[in-house]
Amino acid sequence: MGINLLKAGDNVLEFFLLKSSVCRTSSNNKKYLDLTLVDKTGEVNGKYWDCKTEEVETFQAHQLVKVQGVVQEWQQRLQLKINKIRIALPEDNVSISDFIPTASEDPQAMYKVIWRFIHEMTNEDIKKIVAKMVKSKEEQLMFYPAAKENHHAIIGGLLYHIKTMLLAGEKLAEIYGGINKDLLYAGIILHDLSKTDEMKAGPIGLITEYTVEGQLLGHIIQGVREIDQTAKEVGADSEVSLLLQHMVLAHHYVPEYGSPKRPMIPEGELLHYLDMIDARMYDMGKVLANTAPGELSDRVWTLDNRKLYRAHLESKKESSPEE
Amino acid sequence: MGINLLKAGDNVLEFFLLKSSVCRTSSNNKKYLDLTLVDKTGEVNGKYWDCKTEEVETFQAHQLVKVQGVVQEWQQRLQLKINKIRIALPEDNVSISDFIPTASEDPQAMYKVIWRFIHEMTNEDIKKIVAKMVKSKEEQLMFYPAAKENHHAIIGGLLYHIKTMLLAGEKLAEIYGGINKDLLYAGIILHDLSKTDEMKAGPIGLITEYTVEGQLLGHIIQGVREIDQTAKEVGADSEVSLLLQHMVLAHHYVPEYGSPKRPMIPEGELLHYLDMIDARMYDMGKVLANTAPGELSDRVWTLDNRKLYRAHLESKKESSPEE
Amino acid sequence: MGINLLKAGDNVLEFFLLKSSVCRTSSNNKKYLDLTLVDKTGEVNGKYWDCKTEEVETFQAHQLVKVQGVVQEWQQRLQLKINKIRIALPEDNVSISDFIPTASEDPQAMYKVIWRFIHEMTNEDIKKIVAKMVKSKEEQLMFYPAAKENHHAIIGGLLYHIKTMLLAGEKLAEIYGGINKDLLYAGIILHDLSKTDEMKAGPIGLITEYTVEGQLLGHIIQGVREIDQTAKEVGADSEVSLLLQHMVLAHHYVPEYGSPKRPMIPEGELLHYLDMIDARMYDMGKVLANTAPGELSDRVWTLDNRKLYRAHLESKKESSPEE
Amino acid sequence: MGINLLKAGDNVLEFFLLKSSVCRTSSNNKKYLDLTLVDKTGEVNGKYWDCKTEEVETFQAHQLVKVQGVVQEWQQRLQLKINKIRIALPEDNVSISDFIPTASEDPQAMYKVIWRFIHEMTNEDIKKIVAKMVKSKEEQLMFYPAAKENHHAIIGGLLYHIKTMLLAGEKLAEIYGGINKDLLYAGIILHDLSKTDEMKAGPIGLITEYTVEGQLLGHIIQGVREIDQTAKEVGADSEVSLLLQHMVLAHHYVPEYGSPKRPMIPEGELLHYLDMIDARMYDMGKVLANTAPGELSDRVWTLDNRKLYRAHLESKKESSPEE
Amino acid sequence: MGINLLKAGDNVLEFFLLKSSVCRTSSNNKKYLDLTLVDKTGEVNGKYWDCKTEEVETFQAHQLVKVQGVVQEWQQRLQLKINKIRIALPEDNVSISDFIPTASEDPQAMYKVIWRFIHEMTNEDIKKIVAKMVKSKEEQLMFYPAAKENHHAIIGGLLYHIKTMLLAGEKLAEIYGGINKDLLYAGIILHDLSKTDEMKAGPIGLITEYTVEGQLLGHIIQGVREIDQTAKEVGADSEVSLLLQHMVLAHHYVPEYGSPKRPMIPEGELLHYLDMIDARMYDMGKVLANTAPGELSDRVWTLDNRKLYRAHLESKKESSPEE
Amino acid sequence: MGINLLKAGDNVLEFFLLKSSVCRTSSNNKKYLDLTLVDKTGEVNGKYWDCKTEEVETFQAHQLVKVQGVVQEWQQRLQLKINKIRIALPEDNVSISDFIPTASEDPQAMYKVIWRFIHEMTNEDIKKIVAKMVKSKEEQLMFYPAAKENHHAIIGGLLYHIKTMLLAGEKLAEIYGGINKDLLYAGIILHDLSKTDEMKAGPIGLITEYTVEGQLLGHIIQGVREIDQTAKEVGADSEVSLLLQHMVLAHHYVPEYGSPKRPMIPEGELLHYLDMIDARMYDMGKVLANTAPGELSDRVWTLDNRKLYRAHLESKKESSPEE
Repeated sequence: MGINLLKAGDNVLEFFLLKSSVCRTSSNNKKYLDLTLVDKTGEVNGKYWDCKTEEVETFQAHQLVKVQGVVQEWQQRLQLKINKIRIALPEDNVSISDFIPTASEDPQAMYKVIWRFIHEMTNEDIKKIVAKMVKSKEEQLMFYPAAKENHHAIIGGLLYHIKTMLLAGEKLAEIYGGINKDLLYAGIILHDLSKTDEMKAGPIGLITEYTVEGQLLGHIIQGVREIDQTAKEVGADSEVSLLLQHMVLAHHYVPEYGSPKRPMIPEGELLHYLDMIDARMYDMGKVLANTAPGELSDRVWTLDNRKLYRAHLESKKESSPEE
Repeated sequence: MGINLLKAGDNVLEFFLLKSSVCRTSSNNKKYLDLTLVDKTGEVNGKYWDCKTEEVETFQAHQLVKVQGVVQEWQQRLQLKINKIRIALPEDNVSISDFIPTASEDPQAMYKVIWRFIHEMTNEDIKKIVAKMVKSKEEQLMFYPAAKENHHAIIGGLLYHIKTMLLAGEKLAEIYGGINKDLLYAGIILHDLSKTDEMKAGPIGLITEYTVEGQLLGHIIQGVREIDQTAKEVGADSEVSLLLQHMVLAHHYVPEYGSPKRPMIPEGELLHYLDMIDARMYDMGKVLANTAPGELSDRVWTLDNRKLYRAHLESKKESSPEE
Repeated sequence: MGINLLKAGDNVLEFFLLKSSVCRTSSNNKKYLDLTLVDKTGEVNGKYWDCKTEEVETFQAHQLVKVQGVVQEWQQRLQLKINKIRIALPEDNVSISDFIPTASEDPQAMYKVIWRFIHEMTNEDIKKIVAKMVKSKEEQLMFYPAAKENHHAIIGGLLYHIKTMLLAGEKLAEIYGGINKDLLYAGIILHDLSKTDEMKAGPIGLITEYTVEGQLLGHIIQGVREIDQTAKEVGADSEVSLLLQHMVLAHHYVPEYGSPKRPMIPEGELLHYLDMIDARMYDMGKVLANTAPGELSDRVWTLDNRKLYRAHLESKKESSPEE
Repeated sequence: MGINLLKAGDNVLEFFLLKSSVCRTSSNNKKYLDLTLVDKTGEVNGKYWDCKTEEVETFQAHQLVKVQGVVQEWQQRLQLKINKIRIALPEDNVSISDFIPTASEDPQAMYKVIWRFIHEMTNEDIKKIVAKMVKSKEEQLMFYPAAKENHHAIIGGLLYHIKTMLLAGEKLAEIYGGINKDLLYAGIILHDLSKTDEMKAGPIGLITEYTVEGQLLGHIIQGVREIDQTAKEVGADSEVSLLLQHMVLAHHYVPEYGSPKRPMIPEGELLHYLDMIDARMYDMGKVLANTAPGELSDRVWTLDNRKLYRAHLESKKESSPEE
Repeated sequence: MGINLLKAGDNVLEFFLLKSSVCRTSSNNKKYLDLTLVDKTGEVNGKYWDCKTEEVETFQAHQLVKVQGVVQEWQQRLQLKINKIRIALPEDNVSISDFIPTASEDPQAMYKVIWRFIHEMTNEDIKKIVAKMVKSKEEQLMFYPAAKENHHAIIGGLLYHIKTMLLAGEKLAEIYGGINKDLLYAGIILHDLSKTDEMKAGPIGLITEYTVEGQLLGHIIQGVREIDQTAKEVGADSEVSLLLQHMVLAHHYVPEYGSPKRPMIPEGELLHYLDMIDARMYDMGKVLANTAPGELSDRVWTLDNRKLYRAHLESKKESSPEE
Repeated sequence: MGINLLKAGDNVLEFFLLKSSVCRTSSNNKKYLDLTLVDKTGEVNGKYWDCKTEEVETFQAHQLVKVQGVVQEWQQRLQLKINKIRIALPEDNVSISDFIPTASEDPQAMYKVIWRFIHEMTNEDIKKIVAKMVKSKEEQLMFYPAAKENHHAIIGGLLYHIKTMLLAGEKLAEIYGGINKDLLYAGIILHDLSKTDEMKAGPIGLITEYTVEGQLLGHIIQGVREIDQTAKEVGADSEVSLLLQHMVLAHHYVPEYGSPKRPMIPEGELLHYLDMIDARMYDMGKVLANTAPGELSDRVWTLDNRKLYRAHLESKKESSPEE
């Protein structure tokens, strides 16, 4: 039974992933473990009372555990009172990837899509810069999310975000023929790549914190520097390097969101809107999936605090072009 | 020779369209005609001195004229000193459409594209509302521009704007499968339709002024009202009517630009970005067409006062899907 | 004894109105009712422990109940620990209107004031539009508040707000003679009328939630549409209809508060200020009534987070002209 | 014939007031007088060529002159080419007050209205402070305008502004009975009184410049200081003094317009709105008087750059209560 | 052991200062004291259960007490469960100044630095005004903090802030030779002096609340008034008085922070930046003292919600010029 | 006679520097040179009529010329009607540096001050980075201004700005002992160094335009990249490099002015304020030097559109520490 279906009074005997684990002391001076348990459907707080010292060592974040307990309500939130807990064993046949939200496509498949776009580039300088930077981030791309809390905060989310934007960009470039496709695709691939330097993602693919360099400079500036460096290393034309740096610098569009310059080339303008569309379609889809037809959602912080409305109108879904 | 190629000292013997014509009195008490002459490439001021009373009557705005004169520079701007001027005659074989900037496609052809999208709609209520509103604006759609000064301020510009957004929307709906296509296409077709009630366009397809109703309400509110009315007339489902009204109301996205509500459905969100992309690609293309490779343009007011950069990189143009 | 006078330790045996009632489960797995009890003086939280299933059914929101219990302090707030609770009986001789805050005047009397102003209108078109719209809302006007949380959030508050603004508008029209009184009075009467479509008010006259249409359009747009429709139905002059729509559209004055246009006629300008004055005098009066002379109030959210000061100066109250 | 009726080609023989007079040198090294001529209906630029040195001395600002000349158009503005000019003589029987816009009521009569309100005050401290401050400004009140360019920029405009606000405040205090009338009337009388210290008004009642103190402090701060000082001199209660200072300090309502504090008493809140209403009704009336029915005005800078609309609807004017 | 070192489970037998003391009633109807205990290192909440009526009288805010209890964790915060408590006795040899954070220098010594600057002033008017105002605040300067929560919220903090700014101003006046030192030093000394009228500081030097006058006017306006008054009393030149008033009025630089005017003299401009530098260096130093090398701090509200970074680089501290 | 002293009617026979030279055609089809003539005191427009083709070639921007002509007034501005003009000859003994505004100190002397600070740095990594970057810009530092229009827009202005900030920073580091001097001095030296890459300065030391890279990235981003690159080349510690990049990135303080991050270390905070103080003291000094005692200046665009006031108070000037 998924965490999102738990209700007060339920007896639980399930596997969960520990997202965090802290040992605390109660007001009557007893030690207990204050746990955050997750599965693909959500997360719930758990209390394991009267824990022993060795248990504190054992039950660390990112461990898979089996838990027996009962669901209670405390201050209007659900909480799992844990009676028994143990580390998952090989014979349990459970794996971390069963417990954390993951992009709906295989990372390797998405990674190949990106390379298809790189291979099709006709400007050799752009191709070399992008190829070199993507290769250097290959390992992180297999699991990094696209953001800490907002859109695509899932395993492989960054890759999924890039891949979808490429497909959308390919479509719009058919309509707006004056666009330089090499520039557009390069901008899409590179725009958020330095998030892997700005944030630290633990083995379970969720951002745990920002790096010091990420805090003092930010992924936009880190990205600009890295393009500059890479372009010099591959001996690229200076205008090509400048245009790519400019696109990354400008893709947040306004200073308040980190872009000191607005796009001064059409490919940069389009990059910004493709980024917005992809983030918003993802976030809205996620919210509406949890909203009943005819109902309004709660206010959503990542959507400028808007409520969304799920219409009764039947959605005519079309299969995505990749499927 | 196009107006954009004139330089001081040139002798001119050409046809032009009069965009405006005002009779003024000089400091030595002589009457003269102060004219704005246009062709497809630009506009230039002209002075016709010592004009007679009957000439003031004859040379009105929107007339085609033949002019003989010389180009001079006055206060760093070019000016045409007109020696002779007459109304164009049938045997001159010139027509207004040769003198004013026009969308690159035939209005009837673009109008058919819109109807293709209407015919493909599966929700009968949406189809009825859109069909009725489009029919009622058919005449204006043949020549209305999409704006007074910004993007698509050309004959047939509104139709061109709608058509291009539909094609782009069709593409993105392939990528973002959860989108209701009927809603999206309806929103695109209706979003600016009431500009024909907000502004007055003269026979030459350029906005001359706002209507009183346009000033006191604005095309967004006018559009919402008209959808409400039309939906009642065709007996449409109330949610369908509400969703279409909401999309038009929210398509400018922020209150400062006239939308009291932000989009609360994904189709409304996408409508906003398609609108922005189409306007920006048009405006940027127009500016860059007049900018030399390696140069920066002047600041462009309609692009938030940005300069644009025309790269040396060869643009790989692709033919548009309609061609 | 009113709720505002309760203090920790008091034994209570009183009638209250249930504003809300939720069944919860405690950490030791016992069911209890978590109640909000109100009377005219305020509200207090109540806990009724170990409730039976049939009691959960019985004690629903908007019921009048008799309660026996004791007042306790928990986390610095008062709470009523309920020992006994029963539904009020006919022989108890209590009615809902004794338990909820109500405008200080009889709805019927206030409604008559509005009709006096309508009857005095000399422009027949304005009179017909206003009369038709007021009649169609007569039922709701008898109990709707003027807002969900801010000013006049009391039974009949909307009617009270309109009536007071009419009296104030009548006075100012004596000073500013150029004002068209018909327009001004019509604007006052119509400006918030569509709040009855934007929000749902339960039988006890308090707003419980927004309607979907209210969320997607808002009462300003709803009002504009309705005037447009009504004017067509009564065959009114188109300028009259336009002016009334404009006044409603512009009465919040700035886009951030929902008005895409600012008032472009003096009657619209005056409407805005009369609305502000009436809301502010009401809110300030309410805050100062609970502030001791020489003291500052807490920060008041509905007053831009200001504190108010209650002066020692004796207030020279004058009787209102209606009394 | 009033200046507002002049058109190119008119021959003029009229008296005017010189608002400004500057001697300039033309490009062919000839001296000429560059004059601003005003009457009650407007102002026009005039050029008097080949002026003699003694004429430069003679024709100074604020002189009444008789002028013979012809109206010409230069750079789309009208200009008066002056052939003859002389100082007005006693026997011409013209006076400055015939040539400058003046409040529609006699200063002495308006001044008496203010004293009626002072005499009716029941709080002796408030009465003493207000009486002392008004007496000390009596001379300036006879001619000061209420602003440099905005509302009431006419002779006696400050007095007219105060008087009208008092009458309106008196009306609203009947509706909002909790208002302390003494405070409200005192706030109205004092709120702009220090404009006489902030700006210099020449003998013709138009603001010519700001004082150094006005620039470095501003009339709001100057007013607060003066109330503080006056209250000490008359031995007033300290709370009375504080409340009056606070009302003046807060009457512009927001920091960007010079009020570091928002009103914290209802009388201060009402003062702000009365000030806004009076300024706006004046400015709007002035604009609409020059706008034809069914037309929109130009954008008006002092009205947040709005256009106004003059409706066809017949205005039902009422006589003002003072008449 | 300092409060900052307490951890759950510790047994405590220490002296503390009571910052606040409130008697509350628990859910089982028992009275208890809810205390805030402070020492120089921090503060902690304490609960003293089953207190007697006379104890409520005894243990008031600002008392020094000796406490025996145990540290517990409740809702993730530490809390002191108090078993025994008594008032500190003379023989305990503890004094309030041992328990509250204090400026690192002796108030009398800092006060002398201020007088050194006053004595060196060459403009007699400025010297007289400053000397009179400083003398009148001598008592408060011995303990007032510079702010309620932000920078220098310590005993003697206001004096420390003034003194450090004077020393920094003296240095910069060497670099920027055009600065009038008398004006600059006077501005520094006077700029925040009226905080002693705006806020009430209890005997332990911490701001407990704002005065009514402080709320209705604010220390900037209070300061301007007092300079005006003092200048008149000492017969100072009116420009001198105006310049000092202007400097105090403008020192917050922008309207949103309380300055209706920006500095219009260089000394006022420099005063603003010296104020900012001194506040920021103090706040940043305090945050970094609690941050480990290589770590980021939490977000700091008084620093525009920034995080700070403590570098590994060894700080090369220099002794301050006064030491 | 300096340009600032010219008045209409003056006969002129002087040397000037040509800042710009454009050949135009008059309305009667005659060619003329439209010149901007400068000396150290200001600039004036000049017209040289009926110029020959070879003269157009000869009189180019940045040439020194000798001119004979007469000063006229045209549209209220002075203009020099040139009768004779020739290129300055060696025997005229005039040099460009006599005609353009220059920093008051010798570039070589200021450059030495900078090296004194570099030599005193104790952190070898910081010293190496700064030394390498300064050496690479040595040539440009000899003449670059600090800005295009604002502060220090004079020959050598950038060097003067850096030098003065270093001296001020040295002083404040004595007061605020916790500051790391190496970091602070490095930040000061590097903060604007990339302006030499952002803008092009002609041989006469005035910015003529921005570079393409300057427009697409800006000097802040260019500076960050260059520090990154240089630090790698000299093998500096990565934290040192990061801190310097962060200081440059953050020195404009707010996103709207180009800094995506605010300073997160005290040295960065201080750098920002030293930059502001130096720019403001320079600009204010320049404005007040042209303002009479007791007068207000015009509004100054670079000072947020403020007017300044020049006090009567005698300025007690001190010699600067370097003199």
